[in-house]
Amino acid sequence: MMSKDKKQPRPKAETPKGFRDYFGTEVTERAEMLQKIAGVYHHYGFDALESSAVETVEALGKFLPDVDRPNEGVFAWQEEDSDWVALRYDLTAPLARVYAQYRNDLPTPYRRYAMGPVWRNEKPGPGRFRQFYQCDADTVGAPSVAADAEICAMLSDTLETVGIPRGDYLVRINNRKVLNGVLECMGLSDDAQRDAVLRTIDKFDKVGEAGVRELLGKGRLDASGAYIDGVGLSDDQAAPVLAFLTSRGDTASATLANLRAAIGASMVGAEGVAELETMAELLDAGGYGADRIILDPSVVRGLGYYTGPVFEAELTFEIFDEKGRKRQFGSVSGGGRYDDLVKRFTGQSVPATGVSIGVDRLLAALREKGRIGSQSHGPVVVTVMDRDRMADYQAMVTELRTAGIRAEVYLGNPKNFGNQLKYADKRNSPVAIIEGGDEKTQGIIQIKDLILGAQMAENATLEEWKERPSQFTVPRGDMVAKVREILGGQR
Amino acid sequence: MMSKDKKQPRPKAETPKGFRDYFGTEVTERAEMLQKIAGVYHHYGFDALESSAVETVEALGKFLPDVDRPNEGVFAWQEEDSDWVALRYDLTAPLARVYAQYRNDLPTPYRRYAMGPVWRNEKPGPGRFRQFYQCDADTVGAPSVAADAEICAMLSDTLETVGIPRGDYLVRINNRKVLNGVLECMGLSDDAQRDAVLRTIDKFDKVGEAGVRELLGKGRLDASGAYIDGVGLSDDQAAPVLAFLTSRGDTASATLANLRAAIGASMVGAEGVAELETMAELLDAGGYGADRIILDPSVVRGLGYYTGPVFEAELTFEIFDEKGRKRQFGSVSGGGRYDDLVKRFTGQSVPATGVSIGVDRLLAALREKGRIGSQSHGPVVVTVMDRDRMADYQAMVTELRTAGIRAEVYLGNPKNFGNQLKYADKRNSPVAIIEGGDEKTQGIIQIKDLILGAQMAENATLEEWKERPSQFTVPRGDMVAKVREILGGQR
Repeated sequence: MMSKDKKQPRPKAETPKGFRDYFGTEVTERAEMLQKIAGVYHHYGFDALESSAVETVEALGKFLPDVDRPNEGVFAWQEEDSDWVALRYDLTAPLARVYAQYRNDLPTPYRRYAMGPVWRNEKPGPGRFRQFYQCDADTVGAPSVAADAEICAMLSDTLETVGIPRGDYLVRINNRKVLNGVLECMGLSDDAQRDAVLRTIDKFDKVGEAGVRELLGKGRLDASGAYIDGVGLSDDQAAPVLAFLTSRGDTASATLANLRAAIGASMVGAEGVAELETMAELLDAGGYGADRIILDPSVVRGLGYYTGPVFEAELTFEIFDEKGRKRQFGSVSGGGRYDDLVKRFTGQSVPATGVSIGVDRLLAALREKGRIGSQSHGPVVVTVMDRDRMADYQAMVTELRTAGIRAEVYLGNPKNFGNQLKYADKRNSPVAIIEGGDEKTQGIIQIKDLILGAQMAENATLEEWKERPSQFTVPRGDMVAKVREILGGQR
Repeated sequence: MMSKDKKQPRPKAETPKGFRDYFGTEVTERAEMLQKIAGVYHHYGFDALESSAVETVEALGKFLPDVDRPNEGVFAWQEEDSDWVALRYDLTAPLARVYAQYRNDLPTPYRRYAMGPVWRNEKPGPGRFRQFYQCDADTVGAPSVAADAEICAMLSDTLETVGIPRGDYLVRINNRKVLNGVLECMGLSDDAQRDAVLRTIDKFDKVGEAGVRELLGKGRLDASGAYIDGVGLSDDQAAPVLAFLTSRGDTASATLANLRAAIGASMVGAEGVAELETMAELLDAGGYGADRIILDPSVVRGLGYYTGPVFEAELTFEIFDEKGRKRQFGSVSGGGRYDDLVKRFTGQSVPATGVSIGVDRLLAALREKGRIGSQSHGPVVVTVMDRDRMADYQAMVTELRTAGIRAEVYLGNPKNFGNQLKYADKRNSPVAIIEGGDEKTQGIIQIKDLILGAQMAENATLEEWKERPSQFTVPRGDMVAKVREILGGQR
């Protein structure tokens, strides 16, 4: 493939399909957000873990939530020695592997946070990439829903720490056991039918109450004109499911009362309601009111994956989508209890609960709201008027850097001075420094205030141009002070 | 592979061969180091870039340095639509692809830094893993060796910033053009023979001057007893190569004089010597003396890969290797000028130079010297004496956290109190808080100073035990103040 044949066509300079590159502040803003999130997680007593990006396919298993055939969603390949390995598709499956592998050395409960890219071999779409960041915290080996409540409280704190103010988000809690109770009380003993109901519920976000009613019954004509077969329940049979999904009341106790009605005499259902009640009490005692965290049985994401409490953080403010329509920003984080993940490896059930924050979506939300992404300046650029005096220019840069000012000397071909100023412009530099032979002789330098220059170019009157020159001469010795003055006034 | 058959054997909980996981401070110390390095790079005017971990095999090409058949060293797989893709094996090949792809939008010179894991499909060994971190800075589109000199200066600053003091490291500079001049002056026109000489020089670090002499001549019996065929040069023919490799003098001018002798009348050789001279002058003018950066033609790593200046940072202190023998720690960073990497894509030669820091090796060095990795404490643990009062314990934790103290409530099964203290011990917690029913009634809590307790358990006399109890009672209202006192005194 890579023969030395010189007639070989040039390779295409392209990111692989579904992948992208991140530049400048896209990278640093994400790094800052990850650091803030890790700070909260650490403060709550979680320890860092960085597992390898590559896992054996055997260890990864098929636990990708929300995907029917997960192996299809993974980048996998066969090693020479015939082991199949794959890129991790989330941070939870590796945690289960790590906990099973090191369980004799790790503390129990094991509280860990992890962050990094994960990879999904899925069809890319607008804003949907095959590599994206997650930032997770999980408690393994904690049977009590106090652990779940803590995660919800921490999620709320985290969102506020990264810049989502109270009122702009809501953590919503549901419980899989309650749903199981509802199914039990419906007398659905057939596994296939239960699975079909679960898959249908998963569409609640998209198709709403009426849609779910149709899909639980005879079926439904979807937006594309295709007819989707229903589960085949009668209206009476479907009623408890719909009652469950719409049971959110004005208060936690109203919601709990509705749920109790929906589960009838089911034991597992009662257990689920009790768990929700305990979480509500703990969160209330911790001061996390309904303006931050609520019980909401309409949360369906992950109900098929988790085994107990399920939670989701939603940003509640509205944005305009690509077609200019207003819509809620939606979910940026989800989590819940998954008590069977470690059991795959060890045979012993290990209770675990955790949360995953979709960092890229959260960044998009903050940019949307103008909370990050304000214009940041590039380095001060020292131009090169005389290429034989590179050491002089380098010395100026060193002076600026030593004073804490980000700076560089122009390192392209210095022949065309205009290119140097174009470069400073493209870097969004605040200041350019110029020292030609004449200036050198006189012991002065020219300083170009590029921020002011840009402002003036946009809207200054002739008087202002005269009054506030954006280029001026200062003694060489005043360089640092003058640059500092410009940066101080305008950054 | 992942059928639902319940008799399927349990998956093995194992990291794939050659990969590993990183826990706690291993993760945070690396993150801190990456942040420090990025800080220096940014201050020098470099912008962040994060390219995707996955590249097309076509774009990656065969530029892996120091490997004869690079495709073998890469994790690659075929996508459904028949494109071959691979995990990046370094951060330079992706940079070339990114620059070629976005060259009309990027400033020239394009100065970027990047950090993250890279993957190599090589035989793992002790301390040698298939995934490791690099942290690179490169200037693309800068023809002058002022760019190379800047990178060397920045490398020196970076090492000192992360905690390697002056005197414990050395940046060594060589130049590929000088070697080309030597080869030219030897009259080696046969490409295959030139390549053989280059490969031989690459072994200089391992086999030394005498070994290289043998390998350039008839051949050599290596340590394993195998006979390695030589290049077949006569002693006279081999002499200039050996003169080049050993031309380092006491001063830069002595080295330059030796090199001038070794290259004879070669034009390209003279160009290389002039480049080294310019770099030496610029670095000298910048105050980077021979205690930090030197010219050293015995630097051979990457001479086959780079096209101009080549540099390497070496840690000069001694450590004990796994067999207990003293040896120098060695190289932690390398770089140089590679003017042809972008040309593959565009047909136009783009001058570029850069450096890559092996972050994991640098961390190992700092740990070796005891400069990082001092014991850090875990969270304060609030124990659970009465599981019905979880809200009370959670409130204590919230109080501690609000006061800036890392804390958590014990979330495992609280039945066995001993397990709670063992947990605090395993987490290396500084303090455990205990509030049973009696304490609650009296409005007090028990505080266990676990650091003092551990110290006492190790070496205290009976008197000391009596005088300095490591567990005491304080009013509930004094909890935060007392914990702060303990942490303040002992952290």
